[in-house]
Amino acid sequence: MIFTPERMIPLEARRLGIDTRQEPIVFMRSDCPVCRSEGFAALSRVLVSSDSQHIIATLNIVTGDIVADGQIGFSESAWKRLGLREGAPIRVSHPPPVQSLSYVRAKVYGHTLDEMQLQSIVNDIVDGRYADVHVAAFITACGDDNLSLPEVSALTRAMIKAGETLDWGLPMVIDKHCVGGLPGNRTTPILVPILAACGLTVPKTSSRAITSPAGTADTMEVLTNVSLTQKQMRDVVSREGACLAWGGSVRLSPADDLLIQVERALDIDSEGQLVASVLSKKIAAGATHVLIDIPVGPTAKVRSQEGAEKLAITFRKVAAELGLEVRVCCTDGRQPIGRGIGPALEAMDVLAVLQRKPDAPLDLRDRACYLAGAILEMAGTVKEGLGEQLAREKLDSGEAWQKFQDICRAQGGLKRPLVAPYRYSLTARQAGIVRAIDNRLLAKIAKLAGAPADPAAGVEIPVKLGDRIDPNDMLLSIHAESSGELNYAVDYLEDHPGVVELEPIEETVP
Amino acid sequence: MIFTPERMIPLEARRLGIDTRQEPIVFMRSDCPVCRSEGFAALSRVLVSSDSQHIIATLNIVTGDIVADGQIGFSESAWKRLGLREGAPIRVSHPPPVQSLSYVRAKVYGHTLDEMQLQSIVNDIVDGRYADVHVAAFITACGDDNLSLPEVSALTRAMIKAGETLDWGLPMVIDKHCVGGLPGNRTTPILVPILAACGLTVPKTSSRAITSPAGTADTMEVLTNVSLTQKQMRDVVSREGACLAWGGSVRLSPADDLLIQVERALDIDSEGQLVASVLSKKIAAGATHVLIDIPVGPTAKVRSQEGAEKLAITFRKVAAELGLEVRVCCTDGRQPIGRGIGPALEAMDVLAVLQRKPDAPLDLRDRACYLAGAILEMAGTVKEGLGEQLAREKLDSGEAWQKFQDICRAQGGLKRPLVAPYRYSLTARQAGIVRAIDNRLLAKIAKLAGAPADPAAGVEIPVKLGDRIDPNDMLLSIHAESSGELNYAVDYLEDHPGVVELEPIEETVP
Repeated sequence: MIFTPERMIPLEARRLGIDTRQEPIVFMRSDCPVCRSEGFAALSRVLVSSDSQHIIATLNIVTGDIVADGQIGFSESAWKRLGLREGAPIRVSHPPPVQSLSYVRAKVYGHTLDEMQLQSIVNDIVDGRYADVHVAAFITACGDDNLSLPEVSALTRAMIKAGETLDWGLPMVIDKHCVGGLPGNRTTPILVPILAACGLTVPKTSSRAITSPAGTADTMEVLTNVSLTQKQMRDVVSREGACLAWGGSVRLSPADDLLIQVERALDIDSEGQLVASVLSKKIAAGATHVLIDIPVGPTAKVRSQEGAEKLAITFRKVAAELGLEVRVCCTDGRQPIGRGIGPALEAMDVLAVLQRKPDAPLDLRDRACYLAGAILEMAGTVKEGLGEQLAREKLDSGEAWQKFQDICRAQGGLKRPLVAPYRYSLTARQAGIVRAIDNRLLAKIAKLAGAPADPAAGVEIPVKLGDRIDPNDMLLSIHAESSGELNYAVDYLEDHPGVVELEPIEETVP
Repeated sequence: MIFTPERMIPLEARRLGIDTRQEPIVFMRSDCPVCRSEGFAALSRVLVSSDSQHIIATLNIVTGDIVADGQIGFSESAWKRLGLREGAPIRVSHPPPVQSLSYVRAKVYGHTLDEMQLQSIVNDIVDGRYADVHVAAFITACGDDNLSLPEVSALTRAMIKAGETLDWGLPMVIDKHCVGGLPGNRTTPILVPILAACGLTVPKTSSRAITSPAGTADTMEVLTNVSLTQKQMRDVVSREGACLAWGGSVRLSPADDLLIQVERALDIDSEGQLVASVLSKKIAAGATHVLIDIPVGPTAKVRSQEGAEKLAITFRKVAAELGLEVRVCCTDGRQPIGRGIGPALEAMDVLAVLQRKPDAPLDLRDRACYLAGAILEMAGTVKEGLGEQLAREKLDSGEAWQKFQDICRAQGGLKRPLVAPYRYSLTARQAGIVRAIDNRLLAKIAKLAGAPADPAAGVEIPVKLGDRIDPNDMLLSIHAESSGELNYAVDYLEDHPGVVELEPIEETVP
């Protein structure tokens, strides 16, 4: 009966510079004594400890020479979570079981989870204890309508608690959110200065694009600096009553950011997770009054009026449960808003509306004023029915444009949008009436052209439903920063001729 | 309007020797022109093409120096799937959408899938078109009771079609399967020679351990060569009527192997997937008559008699649908079978029973004869009720032991099991009656001690439920091939004192 307590010799940390997104991965040699003695295999979950901290990571076994004898390689996320320096001593062992995974399994088996269980899942996700496959199982288990209203409220609270929250010390703080799926629907940079010009406080944080060609943060970044610290954000808001910042620099609802990464890969929507995602971000950002814009259309994210109504009810009920004032507007999502799709192209539409240019896209102007009006009414600034009119006045008077410039100046100055050098135009072969425009295909083409990473890339679409088109009229134009990207987008366009559908009409001979 | 068709310069393939199991992963530099022009980001799914083939892989972005300018790194699975040589020219582009993922989403949303849809999911998984998160979503969506009986049958057929099948050209081919969760339940190496001695054909292929301390293939590998080619297997079976081979060298139901990898990480059981997994493997192996052993106990895989009955019904119905004869036996799964847990320790139990040693574990002998008897009755070799008696005769006469030696010789010779040098014994502090034994903790301890990778590692447990224990009697002994592994198992044992539960009794003073 031998029992020899024996400490393993630590391994030396090596930064491999491999970006695996959220999932921390370590790379160990197959002949490493630790692997052998611990019985580790490829994809084992391992507890990785430095002198001061530990994380759970997924193991990749290496048989080549990228990790030397006595070394352990780290992905970027693993390296940063442990805060390592090159050569630091590392010990690897079996991780303790992740208790909250049993709640995920309970959800798969149809059980209802309570707030403690959801909090424990969310905390473990934020602390990096879940591999991506575990996050995928959680998302799938909550898919469809598998979360009850109390579960959605509990999940929302859990996501708020797992991150930081902002407190503005004010009785009313305004925010808005668009459920998405509508290219070019860039109303935020217009309505924020309108509302601020009416005296409301709108500390707006926006996201970058996840699956779309541009998020509001991407568009605003074309025009000004959006990476504000919490302190800078507070300064801008206290001076101007509003800001237009990127939400990523403040750590609000970090669980949401992690869930979204995997949701995107899976493309599985869950109404409950959508509501928890939106409301947790808004409440963490300190909002008291939130407008939710749900565009409805066959190629928007929400495809039917009934679906929109159902989603609206969930938003209202969960918000009420959490003490948040919300108003939900279901809007026309059958076609893009404005002319541009992509950060810089959308920024130009925004500027045209704010600067009251004669060729400014009317639909973007109307949509922004309608939504701003709804917020002014919810906030009690004006009586019901008079909000949109007040919004138009602030736009027409130039006050909104002035406020927008003030906000940008406070954030670091107003910049001019870039213009893309490479273009390709799709023209009509015959006359017709525009009968349908596919939002999803347009978004895909804009992304293939390089948006949002290339800010000037995207699609310009000057036509609207019902427009009469003559032969050789331009239907859309692809903008790209490189010819390779232009080719991709053009290839895709040629494979998908249904982006703009025309109902043929007899040509009028001139 | 510029349009410059332009071919990308190919990248040079580099084998990085990183084992990521089934998921093909490629590593590209963040400053690589292809990444930039294609808009690829970390974890993008990419189409990777060599001169002759292409695969879909997951992208890891590299900022360090493990991949040089103009190179693209490959994980082992990606390298092997493409059949590459060092420096081969590689092009990377956007993959076509994987159509079958929409069926996975449909399943999440509660729809029923037809055979075409399930076949398409299974084929895409086998062809490597799913990232692990997609496989996780499929498993989760099928979790609990989410597969209907027709879906289970269709999934089984799809899994069979996605791999090779064996045809023995015989009217009756015997196989058996244990649903598992019971350490030491190594009946197969005993009942196969019994059945072969009765003239039945049993071309047994077994798996290695997935989550347990030993699979039948691991145990048999201690005693003989189990990596047989299809030709070798046929030779052994035609000579001896049976074999005891590892199933991994023949490519039967490869989808199952891939699903099991992710199921193991998720630890999510699905009755439907379990049945499809087992039956697809058996039918692909050419079996016509299959016995299913379902051990039932609080710490076995199936915990209640009702659960076992429900599972048995699904097995019977799906088997009937597929033209397979099955008999299901629900057995006592409250404690381990035999004394040893781990490849070599179990092999020693098997040898003791076959060699009719006086100290051979009775429970293992009884269980093997009971199951062999059920098969002999199902096969019509004897009348109902007389099977077990015939099995005992074959064992007692030494015919089974002779047949076992013949099979091993035909497979390459009989070896002697190794013995582990490091041991630790847990003894009773006080007198008592054994009231409970935790199968799961025992399995965990045996794995921490090094099983199944270290064949001699594991746990020896000489006590049974109801046994009277005196102070200092041995309750269990841990065997390990290294002191480090022994320490792990001992640490875990000390943290989990409930492995063997004693009900205290008054000590009899000697």
